[in-house]
Amino acid sequence: MNDCLEWSARELATRMARRELHAETVVQALAERIAASEPAVQAWQHFDAAQALAQARALDASPARGVLQGLPIGVKDLMDTHDMPTTYGSPIYAGYRPAVDAACVAAARAAGAIVMGKTVTTEFATFQPGPTRNPRAPAGAPRTPGGSSSGSAAAVAAGMVPVAFGTQTAGSIVRPAAYCGIVGYKPTHGTLPLAGVKSLAPSLDTIGALARTVDDAAFFIGALARLPLDAAPAARLRVGICHTPHWARASDDSRRALVDAARAFERHGASIVDVTLPAACNGLNDAQIDIMGYEAAAAFAPELQTSASQFSPAFAAVLAAGQQIDGLRYFNARMLANRMRGAVDALFADVDVILAPSTEGEAPAGLAATGDPVFNRMWSLLGNPCVHLPVGTGAHDMPVGVTLVGPSYQDAQVIAAARALERSLASHS
Amino acid sequence: MNDCLEWSARELATRMARRELHAETVVQALAERIAASEPAVQAWQHFDAAQALAQARALDASPARGVLQGLPIGVKDLMDTHDMPTTYGSPIYAGYRPAVDAACVAAARAAGAIVMGKTVTTEFATFQPGPTRNPRAPAGAPRTPGGSSSGSAAAVAAGMVPVAFGTQTAGSIVRPAAYCGIVGYKPTHGTLPLAGVKSLAPSLDTIGALARTVDDAAFFIGALARLPLDAAPAARLRVGICHTPHWARASDDSRRALVDAARAFERHGASIVDVTLPAACNGLNDAQIDIMGYEAAAAFAPELQTSASQFSPAFAAVLAAGQQIDGLRYFNARMLANRMRGAVDALFADVDVILAPSTEGEAPAGLAATGDPVFNRMWSLLGNPCVHLPVGTGAHDMPVGVTLVGPSYQDAQVIAAARALERSLASHS
Repeated sequence: MNDCLEWSARELATRMARRELHAETVVQALAERIAASEPAVQAWQHFDAAQALAQARALDASPARGVLQGLPIGVKDLMDTHDMPTTYGSPIYAGYRPAVDAACVAAARAAGAIVMGKTVTTEFATFQPGPTRNPRAPAGAPRTPGGSSSGSAAAVAAGMVPVAFGTQTAGSIVRPAAYCGIVGYKPTHGTLPLAGVKSLAPSLDTIGALARTVDDAAFFIGALARLPLDAAPAARLRVGICHTPHWARASDDSRRALVDAARAFERHGASIVDVTLPAACNGLNDAQIDIMGYEAAAAFAPELQTSASQFSPAFAAVLAAGQQIDGLRYFNARMLANRMRGAVDALFADVDVILAPSTEGEAPAGLAATGDPVFNRMWSLLGNPCVHLPVGTGAHDMPVGVTLVGPSYQDAQVIAAARALERSLASHS
Repeated sequence: MNDCLEWSARELATRMARRELHAETVVQALAERIAASEPAVQAWQHFDAAQALAQARALDASPARGVLQGLPIGVKDLMDTHDMPTTYGSPIYAGYRPAVDAACVAAARAAGAIVMGKTVTTEFATFQPGPTRNPRAPAGAPRTPGGSSSGSAAAVAAGMVPVAFGTQTAGSIVRPAAYCGIVGYKPTHGTLPLAGVKSLAPSLDTIGALARTVDDAAFFIGALARLPLDAAPAARLRVGICHTPHWARASDDSRRALVDAARAFERHGASIVDVTLPAACNGLNDAQIDIMGYEAAAAFAPELQTSASQFSPAFAAVLAAGQQIDGLRYFNARMLANRMRGAVDALFADVDVILAPSTEGEAPAGLAATGDPVFNRMWSLLGNPCVHLPVGTGAHDMPVGVTLVGPSYQDAQVIAAARALERSLASHS
């Protein structure tokens, strides 16, 4: 009966809504997988099989709730849950029990989803890692799953759950998706509500999905945002390759992934052109760092007063840097971003989608750090919808992939292109 | 010793930092005023004189904390406080005790401010009024203080506190400031952090100040945002009069206030021109309503599942309308706003500040409704910094005033113009 674990999220929900499949069956099968894999992966901050099964049985016993009927999801532990502890990855919140679900969690439940548990986040979605290991790395030579949505990416990559919530402020959806070899979808900034998600830098914080396929991610986010994401791609896709200002840091593995993705698009009939960003885009990564620091220092004013001794040195350094940024510098960074939003969206007059590196390369060895979001900060700041797709493997047999970027508010366009690339890659492998 | 209640916020904090004045003295004097006026005004959701005095004594007994040393502030009850109940204006949260302060409250405390208490907000910062009465209206003929920052505006207008936090999503700072005859300052969207402020529609929600003078508001917000707001106005200010798409709804009182403000600017040496908005701005109020509805329906997903029976009919209607808006319509509204942000900011090539109506007219009679934000929605959506200034009184001897609008991220520019207008009006009265 473990067949069901290979089905798409859409198929699972449809069959459960039709009562052809019990939610309890799916949750039981996943719980067995989790029991088998979790000791090695450590993706979950909180997982209680009995609690997940109770949700499944309640759904099976009631009228179908919505389009996500019975879909088991992982919830990043940056998001409040009224029935599960919420730590935000920090000892400050050990044992914390929020009164109310995060809005995105409540919306998923209202649509019929089952919260399997809380996935490990780095401390406050920044850089101090949790215990999670990359399921694609050998046990004897562990590698980071990336961060900050570490547990969500690892849980999906290990087949513990078909889809999981992530959030991205710098590179926290795309990077773990890349390192774990799965799909990461960061919608246009503002698509899903941040209420009940611990604020890091709300003008950047974006809720999205980690999933096995583009369709799983699109089905999940589309349902929550009431956004149709099933458009067909343009007959002759125009793909713009963008090396970004940080190309020098892309490894041979990442460069090869970009070339392989471009070839796969060409096999699909796409035209490939080079896209050159305006020179002022060179300042976007620094602007993202300024904005993230200033907003984080503001958002963590309460903990700075009461609990600063429990910050990791890495997180304390982010806040200390942010406190040195004054309002004018913050405003200047936001103004640059606004200008560049217009300039980058104008590039989409000539291309349907931009193809860019996701990471410097494969997941770094070890668990002491989660890798660098150097190729993601710019897109997080601009707010454009991004899809990470796995393309192949690198020198150490770890996954590498690419980022597809669409114009803001045209999520259907980048999802359509991602479906096309996914199909082309699958048919060639 | 009640003299101190006439001093500016800046002067109060400076004297308390120098230990020329005890915070306890100021809080005691305010507590006496509150005791005298509160039965008629009902500005406070929570006020405990002993609790305020305890904060003052603790400050008096310790080294000075910051630039807001000893400044007593009102905190809108939409904002979390770890030491005072937080209701968000809803029976759902009666008795709720958040674990952590809102970030803006923690920042104010870290700078030395004293939280005098929680001021009444309408239900979830929308339209269902609280009990607050406009302190400018006769007791026998009560009028609304406006909303949603009803208690903050009334408390400042009644001299209970020199400055108070407000939030604006549609018109919730400018409108109550106008009705109560005080200054309201809505900074550029995103200036202060929303963490710990109950989400209504975060792409619109903006934290600002209600105050007696422009300098009090600028001093308070500037300190919290580390933003210098003390620039001198341009030698020859260029003021653009903007009737907005809803001019037909401006009463004679509001039209006269606009004329009087323009004359006061001219006496200051300003040049006055008419500003015509792009035609597409006619759609901004509807776009604001769509965005507010969609985001509110998303943000209140938890309460919609658990506590919908405790919503007022007015709030339930906002959410029901929002649930009917799909993601495409929401995205279209946001795209229109983005285009118009560029177009409106371009108008500031020719003018330093825009002068526009704040309200249809004087505060409406009665307490059953809080007035209409028709003249505020557009500016809330665009995110430009706005200052409301009282200009005079209308047919019923109630205050009327005007809104000054500056380019986004140029808060110092609109504050400087507001100081100039305030001075010119004062010297003429």
